[in-house]
Amino acid sequence: MAATFATLSEFVAVLSDASEPDISALKLAQERNSQLTKPAGALGRLEDLALWYAAWRGDVKPTLKNPQVVVFAGNHGVTSQGISLFPSDVTAQMVLNFQAGGAAINQLSDCFGAKLDVHALDLDTPTQDFTLGPAMSEEDCLKALQLGWNSVDPETDLLVPGEMGIGNTTSAAAISLALFGGVGSDWAGRGTGLDDAGVTLKSHVIEKGLSANPTAQGNGLEALRCLGGRELAAMAGAIARARVFSIPVILDGFICCAAAACLQAISATAIDHSVAGHLSAEVAHEKMLAKLCKEPILSLGLRLGEGSGAALAIGVLKASIACHSGMATFAEAGVSTG
Amino acid sequence: MAATFATLSEFVAVLSDASEPDISALKLAQERNSQLTKPAGALGRLEDLALWYAAWRGDVKPTLKNPQVVVFAGNHGVTSQGISLFPSDVTAQMVLNFQAGGAAINQLSDCFGAKLDVHALDLDTPTQDFTLGPAMSEEDCLKALQLGWNSVDPETDLLVPGEMGIGNTTSAAAISLALFGGVGSDWAGRGTGLDDAGVTLKSHVIEKGLSANPTAQGNGLEALRCLGGRELAAMAGAIARARVFSIPVILDGFICCAAAACLQAISATAIDHSVAGHLSAEVAHEKMLAKLCKEPILSLGLRLGEGSGAALAIGVLKASIACHSGMATFAEAGVSTG
Repeated sequence: MAATFATLSEFVAVLSDASEPDISALKLAQERNSQLTKPAGALGRLEDLALWYAAWRGDVKPTLKNPQVVVFAGNHGVTSQGISLFPSDVTAQMVLNFQAGGAAINQLSDCFGAKLDVHALDLDTPTQDFTLGPAMSEEDCLKALQLGWNSVDPETDLLVPGEMGIGNTTSAAAISLALFGGVGSDWAGRGTGLDDAGVTLKSHVIEKGLSANPTAQGNGLEALRCLGGRELAAMAGAIARARVFSIPVILDGFICCAAAACLQAISATAIDHSVAGHLSAEVAHEKMLAKLCKEPILSLGLRLGEGSGAALAIGVLKASIACHSGMATFAEAGVSTG
Repeated sequence: MAATFATLSEFVAVLSDASEPDISALKLAQERNSQLTKPAGALGRLEDLALWYAAWRGDVKPTLKNPQVVVFAGNHGVTSQGISLFPSDVTAQMVLNFQAGGAAINQLSDCFGAKLDVHALDLDTPTQDFTLGPAMSEEDCLKALQLGWNSVDPETDLLVPGEMGIGNTTSAAAISLALFGGVGSDWAGRGTGLDDAGVTLKSHVIEKGLSANPTAQGNGLEALRCLGGRELAAMAGAIARARVFSIPVILDGFICCAAAACLQAISATAIDHSVAGHLSAEVAHEKMLAKLCKEPILSLGLRLGEGSGAALAIGVLKASIACHSGMATFAEAGVSTG
């Protein structure tokens, strides 16, 4: 598999050549699971998660010790359309907050023993307003993909891609419209707290964006470039790189899933190494997850981004793996099997 | 508030005299929450959990460092009715497994930094088959309540009561029928894996149990004594004691909630210091939670008991408190509020 790409076409080739899970490790893990000291299936989704992780790690008794959270920050020209309650300055202010340890994602990363890396992507030069044409040039999109690709630590055993970017639920909604169809109002949500009029405006802006970028329709790479932002492209690059290293991924909310949806549109199996960490309160996330065929692990009404919902799910995944790899079998414990 | 009880009536008096949450700490915590660097409400249920915990701990910026999981094990005479797939021997075998560190609850407790205590309650002398009369004498029930009461470490800052006992979903279902009404089939589930015929038998056994114990109807203490088991009474005692120490409680699945339901039937506010850790796959748990007015934190299809679902929720609660107490305010971080 290609370990680098110098053009967008080469990135597409990388995705099409993605690795598969280890089926023999999966079978051994299933056998082990059936012998653990519990009624069959009694750990529910925890069992599925442990088996999924074992398959992607190629390890019948895996451990999860070094999760990596990577937060990418980008600014969006489309904010000039008035689709966010917060000024674009907040993106850079929040990056400083991440660096100082004061944001939610800092506490969540600490809580679950994850390393947190933060990358600010040319915040002083927002992407172009996508109602006027492509948000990014090919060069700009490629650069962001490569930054995400290079951000993944090969020694990590779980990746959580996160984002911060004022205006980026509008970007994610426009990508959804381009890839999944419908009308703007199917995908426009409240973001950081828009009222009804704000959501209506956002719906129109999304539709205008797709009209201005017809190549994005049904095309994952063009949707990412024309309607996305640098932080979305970086997340896509990171998710793709994790696959190369057999590093499972927990997807966060609506924006992270929009980046993942672009990958899936490029290659149907490109995000098979990922699970959905949570169902966001951003209204279109449920529809998005259905399109991605992902069932969320948690549903706690979060709508913060930063990778926060996915980081929270690290705890559940760690627990599932601890049970799978640490429990005694019926034979080891001398417990009757009924 | 009485710190001990020597009779069942004194236990009832303890419940009626339960402490209240600290409203002034709650107000300060709400004020702090509104100033943290996130859009209002963006952490969803995590915000509610942190505020609930702050109120019960009486601390505007609480920490959660010493959770305690206590697993109580008991045997049930009603197993002679053939309502479980596993023999009663498994209860003692699983206690050995808990003590050796091989069960799911061992891994989950380790995973979330909880101390795990295990108490086996007279396993060699099962309770009486409740289809023939009260499962426990007053003395027996009192002894189990006191054991649970005394099991709570006053230095802990969160309690997770768990259980193990072959036959105890039948006990919990009979309690539910006694307290909430309906027919046996409303409350009988598959337990560790019964087939349809097994569930039908279980429904009849539950109804027979209530007929044989008419004092249990609508009476929390009598339901616990006549239809419960020692591990259920011990959980009830532990939950009540946690209230005395202002220790919040995470409830586990159907059996733990049946014990909690007995307390609530005795005194309407007796379990206000608790949240529901998860929605179990045991079918009647959803109805039970509705009766208790508790919304589960997790819904992952677990049906193991041992406190496992509640232990898993420790991670979410820890994360909520870490965010609440560790995040910077807008002013501290220099972030614009929009």
